[in-house]
Amino acid sequence: MREAYHEQLNQLADHLAGMCGMVADAMELATKALLDADLAIAEQVISDDAKVDEARSVCEEQAYALLALQAPVATDLRTVLAAIHAAESLERMGDLALHVAKAARRRHPQPVLPEPVKPYFAEMGRVALKLAHQAEQVIHTKDIDQARALEDADDEMDDLHRHLFTVIMDKDWPHGVASAVDVTLLGRFYERFADHAVSVAKRVVFVVTGRMPGSGDEEL
Amino acid sequence: MREAYHEQLNQLADHLAGMCGMVADAMELATKALLDADLAIAEQVISDDAKVDEARSVCEEQAYALLALQAPVATDLRTVLAAIHAAESLERMGDLALHVAKAARRRHPQPVLPEPVKPYFAEMGRVALKLAHQAEQVIHTKDIDQARALEDADDEMDDLHRHLFTVIMDKDWPHGVASAVDVTLLGRFYERFADHAVSVAKRVVFVVTGRMPGSGDEEL
Repeated sequence: MREAYHEQLNQLADHLAGMCGMVADAMELATKALLDADLAIAEQVISDDAKVDEARSVCEEQAYALLALQAPVATDLRTVLAAIHAAESLERMGDLALHVAKAARRRHPQPVLPEPVKPYFAEMGRVALKLAHQAEQVIHTKDIDQARALEDADDEMDDLHRHLFTVIMDKDWPHGVASAVDVTLLGRFYERFADHAVSVAKRVVFVVTGRMPGSGDEEL
Repeated sequence: MREAYHEQLNQLADHLAGMCGMVADAMELATKALLDADLAIAEQVISDDAKVDEARSVCEEQAYALLALQAPVATDLRTVLAAIHAAESLERMGDLALHVAKAARRRHPQPVLPEPVKPYFAEMGRVALKLAHQAEQVIHTKDIDQARALEDADDEMDDLHRHLFTVIMDKDWPHGVASAVDVTLLGRFYERFADHAVSVAKRVVFVVTGRMPGSGDEEL
């Protein structure tokens, strides 16, 4: 019984880690679609999002089966609940990559981003990718220090996001209001993506330590 | 055992319904702070958010205790899991009201909203309040038709949100880029608040029917 349980739990962790990989890919491609105004890549991210949603359903059903059949308690129970939360955060990360891809498609063949903000999004894409892969590692290793390292990457994202706002808010922003609105929402999508990655890691810390790390899952 | 279980489950539902009331109040006050540039009300919403976070922890601990001590299966198990998801959505709704209040505080004594968009936010505030109260009802009644009615209110919110964008994007928007950025983010906070209310109701439908209503929890 216990052995079957741990095998199922490992399977669930593998699925969650797989979801991290999926949303990392999605955000990487969405960023590429955004920076290069590449419609084919945007379409790919948009159609692939259904796979993330499906993976989330599978994770939830696995977690449900574990609870129903094994009735875990203590740390085992917290682990399953953390997995349910993580699956929700990861689906949301997929949605955020989807939004980025949809923005690229909506303005195509025009680029969504004015030249001066492109480097910010290239960087935010890089940090988002790093966060998703760090979350993947933490799910496998349950390493507390590794989990805390996500907060550093999240700080990086917050700095980029804040700096991006100063660029948009600059009195001399010459790209018009519509473009400022696009850039505002896109910036928020990256920042939220990072917040959700941190939240996945925090749940792992909770399982290991029994205490939830400091709240405040976003800056704004 | 079963009786204790159902009493605990009712208590959990009461707590969740209480959270609906809290976030409804928070969004009502935040909207007032926003429309009237009222700093005292904004501060109240900001300090009260800790109570929403606390209520969410209490709900999670109750759900955890239910799972650990009663090991529910089938519909009972789905109900507890739905409650865990609902508590997460409700905390997030509280955060979104908090963001609105913080925007009001950040620009005080200047109003955040240019006059022409104020009516949109008055309406979005009204619809947000309605949605939170509808979710509260659905938690008590588990009525499927009532749960579906939230989608109508959410459509209303989406219409308002879309229309708001056409106002900001208008070539003659005379209020500057910074103001457009504020209005963009604020509009998104209301729209996401509505999405989360719908998601609470959908989970109730899932518990009752065993099937998740159509996905797509947001428009953008």
